[in-house]
Amino acid sequence: MSTIQDVAREAGVSVSTISNVLNGRTDRMRSETLQRVQATIAALDFRPNRAARQLKTGHTPMLGLLVPSIANPMYGYIAREIETVAQERHGHRVVLGNTYRNRDKETGFFDDLLAHGVRGVVVISSLVDEQHFEAAVQRGLVMVSYDRRATPGRASAIDHVSVDNFEAARLATSYLIAKGHRRLAFATASGQTMSRSEKIRGFRAAAEAAGLQGSARVIDGSTASGYGDSEMADVGRLLATRIAAGRARPTGIVAVNDMLGFGLMAGFRDAGVAVPAEVSVVGIDGLFLSSLMSPGLTSVSLPVPEMAATIVERLIGRMADPAIAPGEFLFSPALVERDSVSPPARKKAAA
Amino acid sequence: MSTIQDVAREAGVSVSTISNVLNGRTDRMRSETLQRVQATIAALDFRPNRAARQLKTGHTPMLGLLVPSIANPMYGYIAREIETVAQERHGHRVVLGNTYRNRDKETGFFDDLLAHGVRGVVVISSLVDEQHFEAAVQRGLVMVSYDRRATPGRASAIDHVSVDNFEAARLATSYLIAKGHRRLAFATASGQTMSRSEKIRGFRAAAEAAGLQGSARVIDGSTASGYGDSEMADVGRLLATRIAAGRARPTGIVAVNDMLGFGLMAGFRDAGVAVPAEVSVVGIDGLFLSSLMSPGLTSVSLPVPEMAATIVERLIGRMADPAIAPGEFLFSPALVERDSVSPPARKKAAA
Repeated sequence: MSTIQDVAREAGVSVSTISNVLNGRTDRMRSETLQRVQATIAALDFRPNRAARQLKTGHTPMLGLLVPSIANPMYGYIAREIETVAQERHGHRVVLGNTYRNRDKETGFFDDLLAHGVRGVVVISSLVDEQHFEAAVQRGLVMVSYDRRATPGRASAIDHVSVDNFEAARLATSYLIAKGHRRLAFATASGQTMSRSEKIRGFRAAAEAAGLQGSARVIDGSTASGYGDSEMADVGRLLATRIAAGRARPTGIVAVNDMLGFGLMAGFRDAGVAVPAEVSVVGIDGLFLSSLMSPGLTSVSLPVPEMAATIVERLIGRMADPAIAPGEFLFSPALVERDSVSPPARKKAAA
Repeated sequence: MSTIQDVAREAGVSVSTISNVLNGRTDRMRSETLQRVQATIAALDFRPNRAARQLKTGHTPMLGLLVPSIANPMYGYIAREIETVAQERHGHRVVLGNTYRNRDKETGFFDDLLAHGVRGVVVISSLVDEQHFEAAVQRGLVMVSYDRRATPGRASAIDHVSVDNFEAARLATSYLIAKGHRRLAFATASGQTMSRSEKIRGFRAAAEAAGLQGSARVIDGSTASGYGDSEMADVGRLLATRIAAGRARPTGIVAVNDMLGFGLMAGFRDAGVAVPAEVSVVGIDGLFLSSLMSPGLTSVSLPVPEMAATIVERLIGRMADPAIAPGEFLFSPALVERDSVSPPARKKAAA
């Protein structure tokens, strides 16, 4: 790769002359010199380093994207959409960071972005504590948080883009109730995150509206794996084993997300419990993988392309105009029927 | 975010004095000045922009990673491993690009990396033509290509890291033969890529070694979707429909990868053909999702963490020492048994 020094040497001029040409300061330059420099730039295929330009503009045309693990298919899906919009519409590249839900890794990622002159970042984090996010914003980052709502009653310097998680779980639960289910469960991983709390509220609201609060319960579990890719499926598998062995088994289960739902179905298969004949399952996310499961997983689908576009537009817009106030953007989910739900078996319903 | 100008103004010195402090040129500086500059740097939480340093070293501590689509779980898995090794062992961040298998997008990604001073790049591409890769190397990129072998008999400036795809397909096919299968098929997407050709060769070699070349065939299909995430599953689904409707149905099928295998199983379910009772399926990749399928997909597993570590070490090593010659690194696959294979049904075997 040619450097500015190579071009200067080859053209027989100083580095600052090359710099003047690159920056359009050619009014006092002899036209012979200008032509020789331009010919040399072309001959050496010299591409001015954007790092040098960046010293003038103060930022790099890149966005940071922080995920627990890009091996989780849901984060891979969102990342693909964000990267495509950022690149095709705004010419910004995406710097990726996996944090395994570790606060120090998140902070280290912000440090590196700032050091590289990257000013916009999307965070997908399940950590409840947002203080290190606010601190990074104080130091100059423009930030959009995905999948969590703003903390009520507190001003935030961060945009929040999310699906309406309350509504997603309410939809899934109401669908099971409409199919005749009375003994309901919400299956989730241990540890509160804001999106999980919202979903639990939606589940309870739907049960209560049908007078079923007495037979609707939240079941949670955890595993040794904390990687965020197979973890949720592992939790689902364990919960299915527990549910299959327990008494007064629920007939309709809402999974906190599709991955946990996939794990539930695999666990029920291992335990010899038929889905949907003996137990119905609904997921949340709408991953394309849902249609590959056997049976296909009925799921509440998220408008990922629309959310990704909003995330990128907000970042680019607020980087250009700091006067734009951060906001909260809530998207509506929609239920997609597949084959994992049927009316409860009569014998079970009467038990 | 504080700039070097802010620090200079606050400390009452010139920008070049600040630059001298940042670069350790303090031997001729008054200690009072040095202390004041350091205190101001701390007070303003100033972090020297690496873009400025990069003008000296000539490269940015980042690597590029080019994938067809990060929404494909296999690419997400590899990307997670590459990013983690690059960051934890070498302090390099990863810039991600989705190319949807488009040559212009690949070239545009290389242009941007060069413009940003990024010198190392990993390419995961299914395009047979590697000319634009070699051209990018001519312009200064250090490159590792994943999942394809070097073109035999041609010198390459690119490292090639891959699983032994011939052996992967040979293993899968031999396993089916050992289980008693005689009518075999290799299911793949249309369009030759080098890894697919290698797998087809391995499939044929295993069949021939068992004297079954007459009853072993390659079946391929394509769909309208070219995104590289659900595309393979869509192809599998279509092929299953065709196979189910056809005569002299194969009893044992090797899928070119797990995603196509998932699609095959979903398609057979839709067509009322039982896996493995009526048809056995083996995948290649070893995705964790295989264990969530029903039945669990028996698959030839790839040593992804080891390959990812090799990819990153080669890039970092060759960026540091251009004298290191590019090489080819071939990894061994291993079969993981699950529940998608059984001996062929007697009636079918005799038909």
